[in-house]
Amino acid sequence: MKTVAINGYGTIGKRVADAVAAQDDMKVNIGIPEREQLFKDAGIEIAGTVEDMIQEADVVVDCTPGSIGPQNLEMYKKAGVKAIYQGGEDHELTGLSFNAFGNYDDSYGADYTRVVSCNTTGLTRTLSTIDPIADIKKVRAVMVRRGSDPSEIKKGPINAIVPNPPKVPSHHGPDVKTVMNGIDVTTMALLVPTTLMHQHNIMVEINNEVETEEIIEALEKRSRVLVVSAEEGLGSTAELMEYAKELGRNRNDLYEIPVWKESINVVGKELFYMQAVHQESDVIPENIDAIRALLEMESDNEKSIAKTNKAMGIF
Amino acid sequence: MKTVAINGYGTIGKRVADAVAAQDDMKVNIGIPEREQLFKDAGIEIAGTVEDMIQEADVVVDCTPGSIGPQNLEMYKKAGVKAIYQGGEDHELTGLSFNAFGNYDDSYGADYTRVVSCNTTGLTRTLSTIDPIADIKKVRAVMVRRGSDPSEIKKGPINAIVPNPPKVPSHHGPDVKTVMNGIDVTTMALLVPTTLMHQHNIMVEINNEVETEEIIEALEKRSRVLVVSAEEGLGSTAELMEYAKELGRNRNDLYEIPVWKESINVVGKELFYMQAVHQESDVIPENIDAIRALLEMESDNEKSIAKTNKAMGIF
Repeated sequence: MKTVAINGYGTIGKRVADAVAAQDDMKVNIGIPEREQLFKDAGIEIAGTVEDMIQEADVVVDCTPGSIGPQNLEMYKKAGVKAIYQGGEDHELTGLSFNAFGNYDDSYGADYTRVVSCNTTGLTRTLSTIDPIADIKKVRAVMVRRGSDPSEIKKGPINAIVPNPPKVPSHHGPDVKTVMNGIDVTTMALLVPTTLMHQHNIMVEINNEVETEEIIEALEKRSRVLVVSAEEGLGSTAELMEYAKELGRNRNDLYEIPVWKESINVVGKELFYMQAVHQESDVIPENIDAIRALLEMESDNEKSIAKTNKAMGIF
Repeated sequence: MKTVAINGYGTIGKRVADAVAAQDDMKVNIGIPEREQLFKDAGIEIAGTVEDMIQEADVVVDCTPGSIGPQNLEMYKKAGVKAIYQGGEDHELTGLSFNAFGNYDDSYGADYTRVVSCNTTGLTRTLSTIDPIADIKKVRAVMVRRGSDPSEIKKGPINAIVPNPPKVPSHHGPDVKTVMNGIDVTTMALLVPTTLMHQHNIMVEINNEVETEEIIEALEKRSRVLVVSAEEGLGSTAELMEYAKELGRNRNDLYEIPVWKESINVVGKELFYMQAVHQESDVIPENIDAIRALLEMESDNEKSIAKTNKAMGIF
């Protein structure tokens, strides 16, 4: 039984905490550094400081806001504790990034790694499924991003499409390369007025002769990917998140990457498809697998993935 | 002086009517077939029926809803009047489509043509500017479409991204081919919760060695295209339409296709760029040029374009 400290309890931290608690080979301690003084001021006793928590942990999952992470790394190093960062941090902070399908082995036994962002995780899930059968030559993708998370009432846009960044290419392509070595990916990104999910439009040049049906089958077989159909009522991100409510999971999360079946189309040596990403939750199972990799709890990525999936009810 | 009948007075019809009225070589008659009975019931005298109007016209611009157009064609044929349709109709209705830069000559002296849709017009404006210097090999574009026009209160989505169509490719690629013969274009399209403009993300493989600066210069020189800068405050469709209000035009329309300067980037033999389309107005000057082509009022497309631009204050 390993002890996992969660540092920061926002959108990702609270979800990782619950996901760790659901595993039978790890237990969770939660630290909320930004609240310590508030608790003290209010005379509420806390179980210990973040420093105490880290001392007792085998690994800390850092879910603090992006700007704080780099300072924390010094603290983790001093405490001699391993650490997992989120995609908001630069790859350079840890020099190592993580996706359970893309490069689990790279982080095996490492001290520090970084789970790539929700968008990069989404791209990697499907591209790493397609590559073995299609032999990807290059990928061009347009990332249509949600303007804010549902509770972020001060963010926009309310009625605009915002090239974000306006410069092309966006950082998402290079980020995929940190977990899929050597892949040629270029991305363009924009913000739109929605809160529910990101959406990706993907165009892949491939070296192999492949049928559309083979791609659909491979995606259907892959865990953490869901082939969904517009014709059957799941024609938008809103309908997908409505469907997620029927699954009875914590916070109605949709950990899987839905891919629209109708959009999957091989034309000559090109493959097209569209997918969505639940930005608040798709990286959560990745964090669990990253813990097992760093702590050498499981050397086979597929076994870790299967164990995480089972504990969290993931398809 | 030629007489132009406008049949239908919706989003496009009312704008084409004003644009015709602004020209010194044509005059306008407006017909609102769906209102004739209402006027009669209310005892309001009308100048004549739509049939009368068409009899007197040299050309009719059909701006009726998509489903009515095909029936009207019989009426126009019987009356022996030339007709221009909008992009809501299929290319097959007229067998001929029109863009002033793309294929003006094809419609010269023809009886019937069709001004391609706002999105196809937007793609054609910039691609036809780029092709002569870059020699386009293929185009892949993702069309992020506004969910509804500003006044369409019953249409959505309010909070969703909708692959539309969910099948890939969308019809926009084939539509560009009707006005840019032989071009290889494949498109994917979706709807998002905004009303102001469409937005296009365009990836072009090119045969020539070209510098980014050459592409920017060519787009800057082209009329009906505006190179805009996010850095200088035009970083979204909302800021663009706010800027349009400063131009003092009818209905604050933005006839030009804005292209974000920061997004224009040549990487090897690939060109990337992002642009926007004011769906209510970019086709209006095209209708004027189509009138001149059908009626053989001007054989040189650049001269017609310049004349239209001057009358409408278009850059």
